[in-house]
Order: sequence, then structure tokens, then C-alpha cells
Amino acid sequence: MRPDYILTLSCPDRTGIVYRVSGLLFELDCNILDAQQFGDDESGRFFLRVHFDMLADSALEAVRQRFAALAADFAMDWQLYDARRRARLLVLVSKQGHCLNDLLFRAHSRQLQVDIAAVASNHDDFAALAGSYGVPFHHLPVAADNRAEQEAQILALVEREQIDLVVLARYMQILSPTLCKALAGRAINIHHSFLPSFKGAQPYHQAHARGVKIIGATAHYVTSDLDEGPIIEQDVARVDHAMTPRDLVRLGSDTESLVLARAVRRHVEHRILLNGHRTVVFR
Amino acid sequence: MRPDYILTLSCPDRTGIVYRVSGLLFELDCNILDAQQFGDDESGRFFLRVHFDMLADSALEAVRQRFAALAADFAMDWQLYDARRRARLLVLVSKQGHCLNDLLFRAHSRQLQVDIAAVASNHDDFAALAGSYGVPFHHLPVAADNRAEQEAQILALVEREQIDLVVLARYMQILSPTLCKALAGRAINIHHSFLPSFKGAQPYHQAHARGVKIIGATAHYVTSDLDEGPIIEQDVARVDHAMTPRDLVRLGSDTESLVLARAVRRHVEHRILLNGHRTVVFR
Amino acid sequence: MRPDYILTLSCPDRTGIVYRVSGLLFELDCNILDAQQFGDDESGRFFLRVHFDMLADSALEAVRQRFAALAADFAMDWQLYDARRRARLLVLVSKQGHCLNDLLFRAHSRQLQVDIAAVASNHDDFAALAGSYGVPFHHLPVAADNRAEQEAQILALVEREQIDLVVLARYMQILSPTLCKALAGRAINIHHSFLPSFKGAQPYHQAHARGVKIIGATAHYVTSDLDEGPIIEQDVARVDHAMTPRDLVRLGSDTESLVLARAVRRHVEHRILLNGHRTVVFR
Amino acid sequence: MRPDYILTLSCPDRTGIVYRVSGLLFELDCNILDAQQFGDDESGRFFLRVHFDMLADSALEAVRQRFAALAADFAMDWQLYDARRRARLLVLVSKQGHCLNDLLFRAHSRQLQVDIAAVASNHDDFAALAGSYGVPFHHLPVAADNRAEQEAQILALVEREQIDLVVLARYMQILSPTLCKALAGRAINIHHSFLPSFKGAQPYHQAHARGVKIIGATAHYVTSDLDEGPIIEQDVARVDHAMTPRDLVRLGSDTESLVLARAVRRHVEHRILLNGHRTVVFR
Repeated sequence: MRPDYILTLSCPDRTGIVYRVSGLLFELDCNILDAQQFGDDESGRFFLRVHFDMLADSALEAVRQRFAALAADFAMDWQLYDARRRARLLVLVSKQGHCLNDLLFRAHSRQLQVDIAAVASNHDDFAALAGSYGVPFHHLPVAADNRAEQEAQILALVEREQIDLVVLARYMQILSPTLCKALAGRAINIHHSFLPSFKGAQPYHQAHARGVKIIGATAHYVTSDLDEGPIIEQDVARVDHAMTPRDLVRLGSDTESLVLARAVRRHVEHRILLNGHRTVVFR
Repeated sequence: MRPDYILTLSCPDRTGIVYRVSGLLFELDCNILDAQQFGDDESGRFFLRVHFDMLADSALEAVRQRFAALAADFAMDWQLYDARRRARLLVLVSKQGHCLNDLLFRAHSRQLQVDIAAVASNHDDFAALAGSYGVPFHHLPVAADNRAEQEAQILALVEREQIDLVVLARYMQILSPTLCKALAGRAINIHHSFLPSFKGAQPYHQAHARGVKIIGATAHYVTSDLDEGPIIEQDVARVDHAMTPRDLVRLGSDTESLVLARAVRRHVEHRILLNGHRTVVFR
Repeated sequence: MRPDYILTLSCPDRTGIVYRVSGLLFELDCNILDAQQFGDDESGRFFLRVHFDMLADSALEAVRQRFAALAADFAMDWQLYDARRRARLLVLVSKQGHCLNDLLFRAHSRQLQVDIAAVASNHDDFAALAGSYGVPFHHLPVAADNRAEQEAQILALVEREQIDLVVLARYMQILSPTLCKALAGRAINIHHSFLPSFKGAQPYHQAHARGVKIIGATAHYVTSDLDEGPIIEQDVARVDHAMTPRDLVRLGSDTESLVLARAVRRHVEHRILLNGHRTVVFR
Repeated sequence: MRPDYILTLSCPDRTGIVYRVSGLLFELDCNILDAQQFGDDESGRFFLRVHFDMLADSALEAVRQRFAALAADFAMDWQLYDARRRARLLVLVSKQGHCLNDLLFRAHSRQLQVDIAAVASNHDDFAALAGSYGVPFHHLPVAADNRAEQEAQILALVEREQIDLVVLARYMQILSPTLCKALAGRAINIHHSFLPSFKGAQPYHQAHARGVKIIGATAHYVTSDLDEGPIIEQDVARVDHAMTPRDLVRLGSDTESLVLARAVRRHVEHRILLNGHRTVVFR
């Protein structure tokens, strides 16, 4: 197996980008395994994801240097990732554990190529569940007077454990603008409604009161603008008049688990690029 | 074939309703072909739809009289429909004809058991389409100064043609409260978004701007509270970052046609009962 | 809370069944909470499920006696279940644990009203997983020469633990006709294809080879006619040309978990009635 | 607007293909608007679709010549299409007209960028429908003794009308191997089942008899191996125990129309490449 890497970039759209990038890789004996591109006519930006391999990891430094020069020419935002590296996750959870359970099982069974480095919660309900997978559990209670400290503990955990991605798996606390900023682009939340419908609290009760025939869930990047972060993935489930809010909660929980798992997968496979407050999600 | 009828009712929930209704039908030699019920714990109301047949139409009057007495006992809202009768529709349309085309074909091919008695529009684009199915087309232009008269023409059409259901098949005019009231419970609109998301104008552009990953359409009863009428049916379609608002319009149009056709079917089969500002939709 | 029960029945269709059943319940002070019926024109059989409550459990015997008499008149197959009783499950599994994990979590979090009394497997991979939920795990290896004995152990477990439902949650052994017969109507299997497509081994590889654009999963009752048992529930997932059989396995596993969980729920809620080799599934 | 073209190719996978293709386009002042690629590890083949524009149509000949040389080096199968050209369709139909009606409306309303040059049928039911869109209708009855002649008439029509794509829109005749061969890669059929389930006649009756909970439709290229041609697109609809075969026919017809329209769109946008008996379908 040759070592493989993933390059993602965005830049103002102009002629020759693919040619220059593919030329650089060709010259350095890299082989393109997969590539996706998107030119946004509206914003005038171009987005590219290239999965490629090389003869040996020793070639990486040359690739990096050559790309740095190219990126300067084209005013590219770019990242280069080792495709074999598993992202390290911190999962935050409160009282509903279905998303946590789903992520733990996927990680453990290698369905999802991540290491769940830690689970943290403002409650202690899921210490045993995390423990059964050998994952450290951190009980970080939160109250009106310790919010800043609790968030500092989360951030310390992120740094100490070298966390790549924080997953809010039904974590029912609103993050402060400070924490949102610190985790920008590396924190994903699952919202239990089909955003932008039913923002805020108790979306299933709102959905029931409105009498919708379909409910949904939305995974998005966390920003300080609550429920307004860039949407990564959504899915829905059909409901009917006979279902109570409690039924919607149960039915919706399946959608939440699936939507969150897909969003995490795409993030750790470096398939998501930000395009303003929207996302480009390459398959 | 014995003649068949459909009874729908709602009333305060209490013991013995099914027993009394089924007893009445049994005594009058009626045979229950299908029945659906729903008791709403929240509102305390009970909803019932019974499809039954009888020996001959001559028995109808007895059924009706007996039900009137029973209904008085139980404070029922009730309706009795001839199941063989095809509903008469007036379809209103503006510049997008996909829903109209879909309904015309379904009616013509007997997929949908309705008679489209007339098509009316504030534009004249679809005169030929209606004509090709032998359906009268009424061009009723609307401007700032003739709104009330134009609506009076619509209402006159409804009365003259003995219309059972008015279908707003992408009719891009807001009905006045007066007309909404006159058509209460017998006018269905298709809204080109997944309500309550993206109310108002240009929902596909709103959806694109927000970067959602799924779009939808919603069929609802028309009320004077715009986009807030009781929802009958919804469905969705998956979209991605590469789609323009124009792509969403095209993709969404398929969902609109399907959702509207389903809503019309359920209405004319007397499967929809109002439960406050929500609907009970029996299968 | 009044005690509640569920009655299910099927019988030759004729006039008066609903009247007689509802009358009996009315006379015994039972209140119908929900009811679903279906008359199959093809087979001429009538199916009914009634959820009702009564003043006190002491009234049950009277209900049972009266129904026995009525059932004799109408040649009914009928069952009467205590709606508050949680079904006892035995889950069989081999090397893929996603369905097992899903069921364990749903049972534990009371999303699914069942008690998983035991897990048995021909492998020992999931002893720890079962153990983390406090569920006894039985390692019952199977080889060419001990098949009959191993099945006897399963059956002994079913009897000893008073199992209501055996769930084959990716149990990769074919049950003998003897065991199938012993568990008739109380064993559900999840097949990892959209039956009747891709029966037999490695359905995802078959699906990939055929180049289908959608894969599925099917939950069905176990019969000695392999992959031909009455279908309870199916669902699907979209795939594309770039996906390998391994991707299909991963993607399909989500569908399998959901489909199996829905089938189990409907079974334990007594919503499934057999209609020849097909199922009536009431909502 | 610069003129735009679409290049599709497949060839044995090796390093440098994207580099060489993009280099050629860059040197000839062409601008890549969109590109999709796929390397099939199994077959070792590489597939590419590039949408690009150029300064003026006069540059086309140079592009074509340069590609011919490059294609020879890489053993490419390649095609170059004018992206502005609308494909010319011949639609074949028998007694069910929903797919025909759907295609006619989409073409007319420019939802689908095609010209329906002619409709032909072994029955005369849809002469008026075709006529209402100004599309010539050819009644080509078929009987045991004129099959070859009738097919010759179809083929003559294809040639005379310079047809790009023949669409079998519920055309209930089996094409002879000769005709299949003559139309290889340019004839799409809609099969009214979720292939490979329920091949052959009356799939909805087969589906009902088996008691499936989901039905589907499949669009595939026509080959002489009946119902075995490369699958382009599939979709499904949920059904339940109460639906008759007739209900399945009605419900399925919506899925058929949608699936066929999507397949036609992808074909005329040159998004489909053959990979053995499977398809690569670029989005």
C-alpha cells in the first residue's frame, strides 16, 4: 500500500487550477485516486478535494512545499491530511444517549474511522456506557455560576487529548461565543429538527403542535449564532396524526443518529469545505 | 355491486361510539367495508371514518335519519358521502403548469376519481393544455384594482359549476380573507417549501441561501392565515451544494405535483378530518 | 391508569363482526382506545386489532369467556394480550453486532418495550457487549456434527427463559425445519437484501455485481422455506457506482438495524397478523 | 456565453490522465466548468466527464484533433458533445401513458432539454396527447406476422428523424435482438419493478403476491438480455397490506415517471458511462 493523502482547497475560480494541481502531483509521482471539484458561480470560488497516493511518506515534504508555492499564486486556502490517520473525537452528551451509543459502536466496529478519545457530559448517565468501550468519561456538571469554568475544562480536554472534532451528540447546553470561536470548524451539533423549522427548545413539541407530516434532524457546524451554523446533512421521517410528541422524540432519535454519523464521517474524510455560511459536501 | 357510502364524524370521545355506529349500520343491513378511528388524548375528541355498503340506495334515507339522532346524542359533527360520486374540481393556476398537467392527466386516466370541471388562471398560458383535455379554461386576470371582482368571478364559478374542491395548483395570488372564508375546508394549496420553513415568496431561493440539504413541498387547506393552514401532506427531495435555485425549482416541481395529487386524493376520498388547526388523515 | 389489553383476531369476513366485538366490550365496561381492521377481498378473511382498557384486571376473565363464545360463532383465530407486559426476547447473533447493539440500547433506554432475556451466539464476540447491559450471553458454537444439539440448546433456552420472540439479528446459521416449526410465528430474521432480490449468501456482493442503485433490508418471520417467510418490513438506501461491496455492507447495516427494530416493535405491540404467507401490519 | 462542450472518456487507469486532459484544455484556452472522475479498482478502468467551454466554436476542431492523439496514447473510448444541443427523442408507448405524458410536459416546459421528435405506438391511444404538443404520432401496430416489418419501421424512424435516444415509456413489446443491437446504448426502458425482483410480466401482481412492503421501478439500457440491461436509476414507494395489485399499479406509475425522467436527463446530459454491464452515473 502506498501512503495516501487528501488535499482540500478553495480559491477564486480561474482557468488552470486543475491543470496546475494535477501537474504538480504528476511530477512528484503522486497518483490521483479520486477528485471532486465545484465552481460556485455565485461566490466565484472554486473548491477541490483530491485523494492521492505517493511512493513513500518521505515525498510528503516536497509535495507540501510545492503546494505552498502554488497556493500562494492562486490565493488558495488549503489543507493536506494523512488519509490513514484516524480523527480523534470528543463526544459531548447530556441525558439522551442514542447518538453517543451509535458513535461508540461505529467507532468500535470500525464502521467509522475515528478514535473516540473522550466522552464528556454535564450529567453522569453515560459513564458506564463509555466505560464499556474503554473510553474515558468526564463528568463536567454545569450550573449558572460555573459555566465559564466548565467550558474551560472542555477546552482543556480538547487540547490535552489533541481532539480533531468535538461532536455535540444531544448536548443540551448552549456553548458560549468564546467556546464556539475556539472550536470553529471543528465542532458538529445535531439539532433535532429539520432546520430552519423549529429552532430552539422542544422542536418535536413544536412540530407536533404545527401538525407537520414529516420531521427531521440537522447536523451543522457550531457557531455562536444558535441553530444557524452551516448545515452539513439532514434527513427526515414520516409521521402521522396519531403520533404524540413522545412518539416523535423516539422516531426522530433514529434520524438524529444517522444524520450525525453521516456528518461525522464526511468531516473526518475531509469531504466538507465551507462556502460562506454554507457547506460544499463532496461525496 | 351494492351502493357504498362514507361516513365521517368527530365528537367528544366517550365509551360506546363504535358500538353505537356499528350497531346502527348492522341493524340497517349495511356492511362495513373499512373503518379508521383516532382518539386524540390532547383535545379529547374522537374521529371516525366508516366506508360501508347497503342493499340499495333507497336505504340511504333511513341511515341518514338514524344517524342524525345518534349524532345529536353524541354531539357529532358528521357527513355522509356517496362513495361513487366523483368530486368536481376547479383548478387555479398561474405560470407554472406542472401541477395542473399532473392533475389533468390523473383525472383523464382515472388514476384520480375526480372531474376537473374548470381551470381558471390569472394568466392565459394553459388555455391550450386545458383545452386538450376538453376542460373549460377561464382567463381571469387580476390587477390591483379588480381583485374583489376577480375573486367574485372565481366564487361564481364555484357555485355555477357546483365545485366540491378548489385546488390552488401553483396559483400565485393571495386569496382575500373573504374568499378564504367562503372556501373554508374545500380549498387546497400547494406551497413550494417544507413548511413551516421558508414561508412567503421564493422559498427555493431562501432554501438555497440557507444551504439546506433537503427541500420539500406542503399541501394544506387554505386559510386567511397565509401558509398556516392545516397541513395535509408533505414530501421532500435531497439537494446538494452544486444545485442552483433554478435546479431546486425544477427538482421541487416533481415533489409539488406528487404532494398535491396525494392531498387531493385523500380529500376526495373523505379521508381528512380537521382537528383544530391540524388534520387527521386516515389511510 | 386502567389496565389495558390488546385483542387480535382473524376470521371469515361477514357482517356484524365489529358490532359484536364492540358490543361485548361496551357491555363489560371496556373502553376502545384504538382499533384497526382489514377485510381482504382476495382471501375473504377479516382482521381486527383492538386496544382497550377495563376497570380492573379482575374483569379480564369475563372478557375472555365472552370472547371465547363469540369467537366460536365467527370461527375466529384470536389472542388476548396484556398491553403492559413487556415481551421477553432471545437475540441470536453471529459476527456482525450492529443489530444486537441497536436492540440492546433500545431495550435499555425504553425506546422498545421489551426485555432482552438472553443473547446467544455461535461465536463469542459479543459476550462483553451483552454483559455491559447485564444480559446473559450464551456461547453456543455450532459445527457440522453438533447442529441438532446446538438447536436443542436454543430451544431449551427459549423454554427456560419463557421467550416470546426469538430475533435473528444477523445470525448466520440456517435453522433446521424442526426449529423453524417450533418457533413458528415467534422468530423474526433480518435479511440483508431487498427480498426477493438477492436471496442466499452475500447479497451485498450480488447487488454490487448487478449494479443496482438502491439496496435494502427485509425483516420476515422465519420459516423452513429459506428467505421466503412472510415479510414484515423493508427499507432501502441509495447507492452509487463508486461504492464497493464493503461500502454496501456498511451502508446496509444501518438499514438492517432500523428495519429489524421496527419489525420487533410491531410484533411486540401485536400489530402483525398472518394472512397466508403475507402479513397484515396495523399501524 | 462561451460555447460549451462535454467530453466523456474511459480507459485503463494509469497516472497522469487528468493532468494530460486538463493540460490539453488549458493550452487550447478551454475552461473546465465541471469534472467528475471514477477509477474502478475492480475493472482497472478510469472514467471521466469534463464539461468545458472555449472561446469560440472555431476552436473545436483543434480540441478534437488533439484529443484524438491523446486518446490513442491512453487507449481511450471517448466522445465529445456540444452541450447546447438538445437530444432528439423517439418515445415508444403502448397503453399506459403516464410516462409519455410526463416526458411531453417536461420537454415542452423546458424542464428537460430534449426535443421529442416523434412518438410511436403499437396502439393508437395517445395520438391526441402527442398531437396536443405538436409531436408527430406514428401508429405502428404489431402482430405475430409483422414483427420484423414493424421494427424496421421503428428503425427507419430513428434514422429519418436523427434520433439520439429511444425511450421505451411503458412500451409492452419485447424488442428483437436485431433491434436491441441496432439501438445499443441509445435505448432506455422503464421496468415497473425494483429489478432484479419481479422480472417479466405483471410485476405488480408478483409483488402483491409476495407481500413486499416496498415496490419500485428501474430504468435501464435495453439489451437483448431481457430485464438484464445496465441499470441507470431506481426508486421505490412504500406499500401496505391493504393495497390491491391495482393500487400498486397506480402508486408505481408515479415512481416509473420519475425514474424514467431522471434516467433520460442523465443520458442526455452525457452523465452515464458504461462499465461492463453496469453504469457509472456522474451527478
